[in-house]
Amino acid sequence: MFVLVDVYFVPRKICLNPVGYVQTDAVGKEINNKTVVSKIVFDEEYLEALQGIEDFSHLFVIFWLHETSEKNRKNLKIHPCGRADLPLVGLFATCTPYRPNPIGLTRVKLLDVRGTVVTVQGLDAFDGTPVLDIKPFDHYEKTSDFKIADWWKQIIKRKKKEEKRLR
Amino acid sequence: MFVLVDVYFVPRKICLNPVGYVQTDAVGKEINNKTVVSKIVFDEEYLEALQGIEDFSHLFVIFWLHETSEKNRKNLKIHPCGRADLPLVGLFATCTPYRPNPIGLTRVKLLDVRGTVVTVQGLDAFDGTPVLDIKPFDHYEKTSDFKIADWWKQIIKRKKKEEKRLR
Repeated sequence: MFVLVDVYFVPRKICLNPVGYVQTDAVGKEINNKTVVSKIVFDEEYLEALQGIEDFSHLFVIFWLHETSEKNRKNLKIHPCGRADLPLVGLFATCTPYRPNPIGLTRVKLLDVRGTVVTVQGLDAFDGTPVLDIKPFDHYEKTSDFKIADWWKQIIKRKKKEEKRLR
Repeated sequence: MFVLVDVYFVPRKICLNPVGYVQTDAVGKEINNKTVVSKIVFDEEYLEALQGIEDFSHLFVIFWLHETSEKNRKNLKIHPCGRADLPLVGLFATCTPYRPNPIGLTRVKLLDVRGTVVTVQGLDAFDGTPVLDIKPFDHYEKTSDFKIADWWKQIIKRKKKEEKRLR
Protein backbone atom coordinates (compact mmCIF):
# COMPACT_ATOMS: atom_id res chain seq x y z
CA MET A 1 0.00 0.00 0.00
CA PHE A 2 1.26 3.47 -0.84
CA VAL A 3 0.44 6.50 1.26
CA LEU A 4 1.05 10.14 0.48
CA VAL A 5 3.19 11.85 3.08
CA ASP A 6 4.24 15.45 3.51
CA VAL A 7 7.96 15.35 2.69
CA TYR A 8 8.63 18.54 4.60
CA PHE A 9 8.71 17.84 8.31
CA VAL A 10 8.33 21.48 9.28
CA PRO A 11 5.52 23.13 11.19
CA ARG A 12 2.73 24.42 8.94
CA LYS A 13 2.24 27.29 11.37
CA ILE A 14 5.10 29.58 12.38
CA CYS A 15 4.89 31.80 15.45
CA LEU A 16 6.98 34.87 16.21
CA ASN A 17 7.38 37.39 18.98
CA PRO A 18 8.13 41.03 18.14
CA VAL A 19 11.65 42.16 19.09
CA GLY A 20 10.50 45.77 19.40
CA TYR A 21 7.97 48.39 18.32
CA VAL A 22 7.95 51.48 16.09
CA GLN A 23 7.48 54.92 17.62
CA THR A 24 6.60 57.71 15.23
CA ASP A 25 4.62 60.96 15.14
CA ALA A 26 3.84 60.46 11.45
CA VAL A 27 0.23 59.57 10.70
CA GLY A 28 -1.68 58.53 7.59
CA LYS A 29 0.11 59.07 4.29
CA GLU A 30 2.96 60.88 6.05
CA ILE A 31 4.59 57.51 6.78
CA ASN A 32 5.38 57.08 3.07
CA ASN A 33 7.56 60.18 3.11
CA LYS A 34 11.17 59.01 2.84
CA THR A 35 12.32 61.83 5.17
CA VAL A 36 10.19 60.62 8.10
CA VAL A 37 12.22 59.86 11.22
CA SER A 38 11.03 57.03 13.49
CA LYS A 39 12.36 55.16 16.47
CA ILE A 40 12.49 51.40 16.87
CA VAL A 41 12.28 50.64 20.57
CA PHE A 42 13.68 47.16 21.13
CA ASP A 43 12.87 44.98 24.12
CA GLU A 44 15.48 45.48 26.87
CA GLU A 45 16.67 41.88 26.49
CA TYR A 46 18.14 42.76 23.06
CA LEU A 47 20.51 45.50 24.24
CA GLU A 48 23.62 43.40 23.54
CA ALA A 49 22.25 42.09 20.24
CA LEU A 50 22.32 45.65 18.86
CA GLN A 51 26.03 46.22 19.44
CA GLY A 52 27.82 46.98 16.21
CA ILE A 53 24.84 48.07 14.10
CA GLU A 54 26.14 51.65 14.29
CA ASP A 55 28.88 50.57 11.85
CA PHE A 56 26.28 50.38 9.07
CA SER A 57 24.59 53.31 7.39
CA HIS A 58 21.51 51.39 6.24
CA LEU A 59 19.38 48.57 7.60
CA PHE A 60 16.56 46.39 6.41
CA VAL A 61 13.63 46.46 8.81
CA ILE A 62 11.21 43.53 8.74
CA PHE A 63 7.95 44.36 10.45
CA TRP A 64 4.41 43.15 10.95
CA LEU A 65 1.69 45.13 9.16
CA HIS A 66 -0.62 44.86 12.14
CA GLU A 67 -3.19 47.32 10.81
CA THR A 68 -4.26 45.07 7.93
CA SER A 69 -7.26 42.95 8.80
CA GLU A 70 -7.72 39.42 7.56
CA LYS A 71 -10.81 40.29 5.52
CA ASN A 72 -8.74 42.81 3.54
CA ARG A 73 -6.37 40.04 2.54
CA LYS A 74 -8.81 38.04 0.42
CA ASN A 75 -7.97 39.52 -3.01
CA LEU A 76 -5.26 37.70 -4.92
CA LYS A 77 -5.10 40.38 -7.63
CA ILE A 78 -5.14 44.13 -7.09
CA HIS A 79 -4.66 47.45 -8.84
CA PRO A 80 -1.30 48.69 -7.47
CA CYS A 81 -1.71 51.60 -5.02
CA GLY A 82 -5.48 51.29 -5.57
CA ARG A 83 -5.07 53.06 -8.94
CA ALA A 84 -7.67 51.86 -11.43
CA ASP A 85 -5.49 53.18 -14.29
CA LEU A 86 -2.85 50.57 -13.47
CA PRO A 87 -3.30 46.93 -14.47
CA LEU A 88 -4.79 44.27 -12.20
CA VAL A 89 -1.81 42.17 -11.06
CA GLY A 90 -1.06 39.44 -8.54
CA LEU A 91 -0.39 40.73 -5.04
CA PHE A 92 3.09 39.14 -5.00
CA ALA A 93 4.06 41.47 -7.87
CA THR A 94 3.21 44.44 -5.64
CA CYS A 95 4.08 45.84 -2.23
CA THR A 96 0.48 45.90 -1.02
CA PRO A 97 0.17 45.46 2.75
CA TYR A 98 -2.75 43.07 2.11
CA ARG A 99 -0.66 39.92 1.72
CA PRO A 100 -1.17 36.34 2.96
CA ASN A 101 1.53 37.07 5.58
CA PRO A 102 1.45 40.85 6.06
CA ILE A 103 5.20 41.32 6.46
CA GLY A 104 6.66 44.75 5.71
CA LEU A 105 10.22 45.17 4.41
CA THR A 106 11.90 48.57 4.16
CA ARG A 107 15.45 49.71 3.79
CA VAL A 108 16.07 52.62 6.15
CA LYS A 109 18.88 54.99 6.94
CA LEU A 110 20.35 54.48 10.41
CA LEU A 111 20.63 57.80 12.25
CA ASP A 112 21.35 56.92 15.86
CA VAL A 113 21.59 54.06 18.36
CA ARG A 114 21.08 54.81 22.04
CA GLY A 115 20.65 51.76 24.26
CA THR A 116 17.72 49.83 22.84
CA VAL A 117 16.37 52.81 20.87
CA VAL A 118 17.35 52.87 17.21
CA THR A 119 16.49 56.02 15.26
CA VAL A 120 15.97 55.56 11.52
CA GLN A 121 14.86 57.55 8.50
CA GLY A 122 12.44 56.32 5.84
CA LEU A 123 10.54 53.64 7.74
CA ASP A 124 7.00 53.47 6.34
CA ALA A 125 5.45 51.89 9.43
CA PHE A 126 2.78 53.26 11.73
CA ASP A 127 3.25 54.01 15.42
CA GLY A 128 3.05 50.77 17.40
CA THR A 129 4.07 48.51 14.52
CA PRO A 130 5.70 45.29 15.80
CA VAL A 131 9.25 44.84 14.47
CA LEU A 132 10.27 41.24 13.73
CA ASP A 133 13.90 41.62 12.69
CA ILE A 134 16.54 44.03 11.40
CA LYS A 135 19.46 43.20 9.14
CA PRO A 136 22.42 45.22 7.92
CA PHE A 137 22.33 46.36 4.31
CA ASP A 138 25.41 45.60 2.24
CA HIS A 139 26.47 46.10 -1.33
CA TYR A 140 25.49 42.52 -2.24
CA GLU A 141 21.96 43.92 -2.37
CA LYS A 142 22.84 46.33 -5.17
CA THR A 143 22.13 45.61 -8.82
CA SER A 144 22.55 47.94 -11.70
CA ASP A 145 21.01 45.62 -14.25
CA PHE A 146 17.40 44.98 -13.33
CA LYS A 147 13.92 45.16 -14.77
CA ILE A 148 10.67 46.38 -13.21
CA ALA A 149 7.08 46.33 -14.51
CA ASP A 150 5.90 49.26 -16.64
CA TRP A 151 3.14 50.09 -14.16
CA TRP A 152 5.74 50.27 -11.39
CA LYS A 153 7.62 52.90 -13.44
CA GLN A 154 4.41 54.97 -13.52
CA ILE A 155 4.20 54.82 -9.72
CA ILE A 156 7.84 55.94 -9.40
CA LYS A 157 7.19 58.79 -11.86
CA ARG A 158 4.28 60.07 -9.79
CA LYS A 159 6.23 59.62 -6.52
CA LYS A 160 9.12 61.68 -7.91
CA LYS A 161 6.71 64.40 -9.05
CA GLU A 162 5.18 64.56 -5.55
CA GLU A 163 8.60 64.62 -3.90
CA LYS A 164 9.56 67.52 -6.15
CA ARG A 165 6.36 69.35 -5.22
CA LEU A 166 7.03 68.89 -1.50
CA ARG A 167 10.59 70.25 -1.71
CA MET B 1 -6.53 54.58 40.84
CA PHE B 2 -4.00 54.31 38.02
CA VAL B 3 -3.28 51.11 36.16
CA LEU B 4 -0.50 50.39 33.72
CA VAL B 5 -1.78 49.34 30.33
CA ASP B 6 0.00 48.14 27.23
CA VAL B 7 -0.38 51.06 24.81
CA TYR B 8 0.02 48.82 21.79
CA PHE B 9 -3.15 46.84 21.29
CA VAL B 10 -1.47 44.30 19.07
CA PRO B 11 -0.98 40.62 19.69
CA ARG B 12 2.35 39.82 21.37
CA LYS B 13 2.48 36.62 19.35
CA ILE B 14 2.24 36.65 15.56
CA CYS B 15 1.43 33.52 13.61
CA LEU B 16 2.06 32.86 9.93
CA ASN B 17 1.44 30.14 7.40
CA PRO B 18 4.03 29.45 4.69
CA VAL B 19 2.90 30.42 1.17
CA GLY B 20 5.23 27.86 -0.39
CA TYR B 21 8.39 25.81 0.01
CA VAL B 22 11.89 25.81 -1.49
CA GLN B 23 13.01 22.94 -3.71
CA THR B 24 16.73 22.65 -4.34
CA ASP B 25 19.38 20.00 -4.97
CA ALA B 26 22.02 22.15 -3.25
CA VAL B 27 23.16 20.88 0.13
CA GLY B 28 25.41 22.22 2.89
CA LYS B 29 27.58 25.18 1.96
CA GLU B 30 26.48 24.92 -1.70
CA ILE B 31 23.41 27.00 -0.87
CA ASN B 32 25.60 30.07 -0.37
CA ASN B 33 26.76 29.91 -3.97
CA LYS B 34 25.10 32.81 -5.79
CA THR B 35 24.76 30.71 -8.97
CA VAL B 36 22.56 28.08 -7.27
CA VAL B 37 19.18 27.64 -8.95
CA SER B 38 16.19 26.78 -6.75
CA LYS B 39 12.45 26.51 -7.17
CA ILE B 40 9.85 28.09 -4.93
CA VAL B 41 6.74 25.92 -5.09
CA PHE B 42 3.78 28.03 -3.98
CA ASP B 43 0.54 26.61 -2.65
CA GLU B 44 -1.99 26.19 -5.48
CA GLU B 45 -4.26 28.82 -3.93
CA TYR B 46 -1.69 31.52 -4.82
CA LEU B 47 -1.65 30.91 -8.60
CA GLU B 48 -3.40 34.23 -9.35
CA ALA B 49 -1.33 36.13 -6.78
CA LEU B 50 1.81 35.41 -8.82
CA GLN B 51 0.56 37.03 -12.03
CA GLY B 52 2.83 39.85 -13.10
CA ILE B 53 5.96 38.89 -11.18
CA GLU B 54 7.58 37.90 -14.48
CA ASP B 55 7.85 41.64 -15.25
CA PHE B 56 10.57 41.94 -12.62
CA SER B 57 14.13 40.65 -12.91
CA HIS B 58 14.77 40.41 -9.17
CA LEU B 59 12.73 39.55 -6.09
CA PHE B 60 13.18 39.63 -2.36
CA VAL B 61 12.39 36.27 -0.79
CA ILE B 62 11.42 36.22 2.88
CA PHE B 63 11.69 32.74 4.36
CA TRP B 64 11.72 30.84 7.61
CA LEU B 65 15.09 29.44 8.71
CA HIS B 66 13.47 26.24 9.91
CA GLU B 67 16.75 24.41 10.51
CA THR B 68 17.82 26.64 13.39
CA SER B 69 16.84 25.26 16.76
CA GLU B 70 15.74 27.44 19.64
CA LYS B 71 18.72 26.47 21.79
CA ASN B 72 21.06 27.83 19.08
CA ARG B 73 19.38 31.22 19.34
CA LYS B 74 20.49 32.02 22.87
CA ASN B 75 23.63 34.05 22.07
CA LEU B 76 23.08 37.79 21.68
CA LYS B 77 26.63 38.39 20.43
CA ILE B 78 28.51 36.27 17.91
CA HIS B 79 31.66 36.12 15.82
CA PRO B 80 30.34 36.73 12.25
CA CYS B 81 30.44 33.55 10.13
CA GLY B 82 31.85 31.77 13.21
CA ARG B 83 35.25 33.36 12.52
CA ALA B 84 37.19 33.96 15.74
CA ASP B 85 39.39 36.51 13.92
CA LEU B 86 36.36 38.78 13.49
CA PRO B 87 35.02 40.85 16.40
CA LEU B 88 32.23 39.72 18.70
CA VAL B 89 29.19 41.77 17.62
CA GLY B 90 25.46 41.88 18.28
CA LEU B 91 23.47 39.40 16.20
CA PHE B 92 21.38 42.21 14.66
CA ALA B 93 24.59 43.57 13.10
CA THR B 94 25.02 40.24 11.29
CA CYS B 95 23.10 37.92 9.01
CA THR B 96 23.39 34.92 11.32
CA PRO B 97 20.47 32.49 11.00
CA TYR B 98 20.41 32.27 14.82
CA ARG B 99 18.12 35.24 15.41
CA PRO B 100 15.21 35.80 17.83
CA ASN B 101 12.88 35.40 14.82
CA PRO B 102 14.84 33.28 12.34
CA ILE B 103 13.66 35.07 9.19
CA GLY B 104 15.81 34.87 6.08
CA LEU B 105 15.89 37.64 3.50
CA THR B 106 17.60 37.25 0.14
CA ARG B 107 17.45 39.11 -3.11
CA VAL B 108 17.29 36.62 -5.96
CA LYS B 109 17.26 36.69 -9.73
CA LEU B 110 13.96 35.58 -11.24
CA LEU B 111 14.53 33.02 -13.98
CA ASP B 112 11.13 31.54 -14.74
CA VAL B 113 7.49 31.41 -13.62
CA ARG B 114 5.42 28.35 -14.53
CA GLY B 115 2.09 28.09 -12.74
CA THR B 116 2.89 28.13 -9.05
CA VAL B 117 6.54 27.19 -9.55
CA VAL B 118 8.95 30.13 -9.51
CA THR B 119 12.56 29.40 -10.47
CA VAL B 120 15.17 31.72 -8.98
CA GLN B 121 18.93 32.06 -8.78
CA GLY B 122 20.91 32.89 -5.64
CA LEU B 123 18.49 31.77 -2.94
CA ASP B 124 20.52 30.60 0.07
CA ALA B 125 17.79 28.41 1.54
CA PHE B 126 17.80 24.65 2.10
CA ASP B 127 15.42 22.22 0.46
CA GLY B 128 12.07 22.33 2.26
CA THR B 129 12.47 25.85 3.62
CA PRO B 130 9.07 27.50 4.21
CA VAL B 131 8.64 30.72 2.21
CA LEU B 132 6.69 33.48 3.95
CA ASP B 133 6.54 36.19 1.27
CA ILE B 134 8.11 37.48 -1.92
CA LYS B 135 8.34 41.11 -3.01
CA PRO B 136 9.52 42.76 -6.21
CA PHE B 137 12.88 44.52 -6.09
CA ASP B 138 12.97 48.06 -7.40
CA HIS B 139 15.55 50.79 -7.69
CA TYR B 140 14.32 52.43 -4.48
CA GLU B 141 16.36 49.73 -2.76
CA LYS B 142 19.60 50.96 -4.34
CA THR B 143 22.05 53.23 -2.53
CA SER B 144 25.45 54.24 -3.75
CA ASP B 145 26.40 56.05 -0.58
CA PHE B 146 26.49 53.57 2.28
CA LYS B 147 28.74 52.31 5.02
CA ILE B 148 29.39 48.77 6.27
CA ALA B 149 31.42 47.45 9.22
CA ASP B 150 35.12 46.77 8.64
CA TRP B 151 34.70 43.09 9.59
CA TRP B 152 31.95 42.79 6.96
CA LYS B 153 34.43 44.01 4.33
CA GLN B 154 36.77 41.18 5.36
CA ILE B 155 33.97 38.67 4.77
CA ILE B 156 33.26 40.14 1.32
CA LYS B 157 36.97 40.02 0.49
CA ARG B 158 37.17 36.32 1.33
CA LYS B 159 33.90 35.60 -0.51
CA LYS B 160 35.24 37.28 -3.65
CA LYS B 161 38.48 35.31 -3.39
CA GLU B 162 36.52 32.04 -3.14
CA GLU B 163 34.25 33.00 -6.03
CA LYS B 164 37.36 33.69 -8.12
CA ARG B 165 38.82 30.32 -7.14
CA LEU B 166 35.60 28.51 -8.16
CA ARG B 167 35.46 30.19 -11.58
